[in-house]
Amino acid sequence: MAIIECVPNVSEGRRPDVLDACADAIRQSGARLLDVKPDAAHNRSVFTFAGESDQVRQAVMSLFEAVLPRIDLRQHSGEHPRMGAVDVVPFIPIAGATMADCVALATDVAGAVAKAHHVPVFLYEEAARIPGRRNLEDIRRGEFEGLAAKLQQPGWAPDFGPTAPHPTAGATVIGARMPLIAYNINLSTDRIDVARRIASAVRHSSGGLRYVKAMGVALADRGIVQVSINLTNYEKTPIYRVFELVKREAARHGVSVLESEIVGLVPAAALTASAAWYLQIDAFTDDLVLENKLRAT
Amino acid sequence: MAIIECVPNVSEGRRPDVLDACADAIRQSGARLLDVKPDAAHNRSVFTFAGESDQVRQAVMSLFEAVLPRIDLRQHSGEHPRMGAVDVVPFIPIAGATMADCVALATDVAGAVAKAHHVPVFLYEEAARIPGRRNLEDIRRGEFEGLAAKLQQPGWAPDFGPTAPHPTAGATVIGARMPLIAYNINLSTDRIDVARRIASAVRHSSGGLRYVKAMGVALADRGIVQVSINLTNYEKTPIYRVFELVKREAARHGVSVLESEIVGLVPAAALTASAAWYLQIDAFTDDLVLENKLRAT
Repeated sequence: MAIIECVPNVSEGRRPDVLDACADAIRQSGARLLDVKPDAAHNRSVFTFAGESDQVRQAVMSLFEAVLPRIDLRQHSGEHPRMGAVDVVPFIPIAGATMADCVALATDVAGAVAKAHHVPVFLYEEAARIPGRRNLEDIRRGEFEGLAAKLQQPGWAPDFGPTAPHPTAGATVIGARMPLIAYNINLSTDRIDVARRIASAVRHSSGGLRYVKAMGVALADRGIVQVSINLTNYEKTPIYRVFELVKREAARHGVSVLESEIVGLVPAAALTASAAWYLQIDAFTDDLVLENKLRAT
Repeated sequence: MAIIECVPNVSEGRRPDVLDACADAIRQSGARLLDVKPDAAHNRSVFTFAGESDQVRQAVMSLFEAVLPRIDLRQHSGEHPRMGAVDVVPFIPIAGATMADCVALATDVAGAVAKAHHVPVFLYEEAARIPGRRNLEDIRRGEFEGLAAKLQQPGWAPDFGPTAPHPTAGATVIGARMPLIAYNINLSTDRIDVARRIASAVRHSSGGLRYVKAMGVALADRGIVQVSINLTNYEKTPIYRVFELVKREAARHGVSVLESEIVGLVPAAALTASAAWYLQIDAFTDDLVLENKLRAT
């Protein structure tokens, strides 16, 4: 029994009845709805749910059925870029599932959505079949308003579905990616320059670790600073390596780590791998964890 | 959905047909059979399975039905002390289950077994209702052969069932305990005296940490030594504290830790707590782990 997470972004952040209909559609599929984050200013909501492959597939199909009669992008405004009523649908491998499972599921669901609802679908990130479609922002550029023209451009035919936008629902971007881990490391100083220098040292964009995004933030109420981190692939850039590098860079400035914090949820495997590293368990595999053995039996 | 593990010890380690009947009984209950360890010299086998409370309860009831017509302790010999055909049945809290859940389950199953099969049952460890019955060895002293006399002694009436042994199945000890974690720490030396001194420093019996058993062992083929550890309550004496103490004691002798290893299975919570300690996640709770949230939703 493998677990897959799904985090669709829907272009509605204000009308509670629409959000309730989406939540009900997900729950009735058998998937477990873990979180709903509506954002009124963005006029956009993020649903987080998880379950077995069949449940997650059904949840996405039901979500489209709930959204299509209720959201009309011709009437939609909000601060966040968007191209579809169901804007982005990433599938994420959790316990017992591989990235290949999620790519297969994304491709399957993309075809089914296009066929059932005549919505153009692009495959992105790990599910992308065209190199220029790995990055969501490249696909979404031009947004709903520019979609009809974009679909006619060379190289921008959708992976599935018609080469014209759905009149009210635009197009959808479906794909597979690793779980995002958001975590923060608090430092024993109020010097924001130290937090910024550490963030700059560890993040990918300025020469640091490949799957790290980071910035320095002041926590004014506590009189301290924080290195705020997004980890986009914990298998390839593990938490412990980021933590140890931040700690070492902080020591260079005479600063120590007060504590760190996880924001949202973290897959067990990201933590068990960290424990194995610190405890020097060389032969560690996920199969040594009782719950994983149970899931696989 | 809480998960409870159960590790019954059955007094048969030689006849494959009897072991198969036990395994089938467990599997048909819906619980997941994780491991079977027969020992011919001990004439005894350890079954490991897990599942939801109802499944685990049913598995134990079915196990008794499989064992009673097949094992006759009057004909049984082996090196390991034993008092019953189904000798010991510990229930163990894993994800989402508490010790109180396991005590309640042990008490319920003990009553049901005594009633259905007229087997005297003692409650032990965390489920014990009489202080002198916490320790399995105290209950089992005298074994099957001394059982009839023991049951007549003051203070040795069983917790459930008749005050005479079952003619072929003796008596059973049922209870609740924490998971055992078996793990070893290998040292960069061949000096067995160093391993023994470290084991002595960290184990409870000679003044060390409360829930640690440890001994020094030579790994002759590798030319190194090992501190071999059993951890009987990872919540109260966590793995990382034992590991760090062993590492510190080793350093005192100019020795370092090569690696450590888990023997058998480890509950995820024992590792995630270790990760949280090393990563200094002060506000860590099991609810931050996606799989736990999913189980509880």
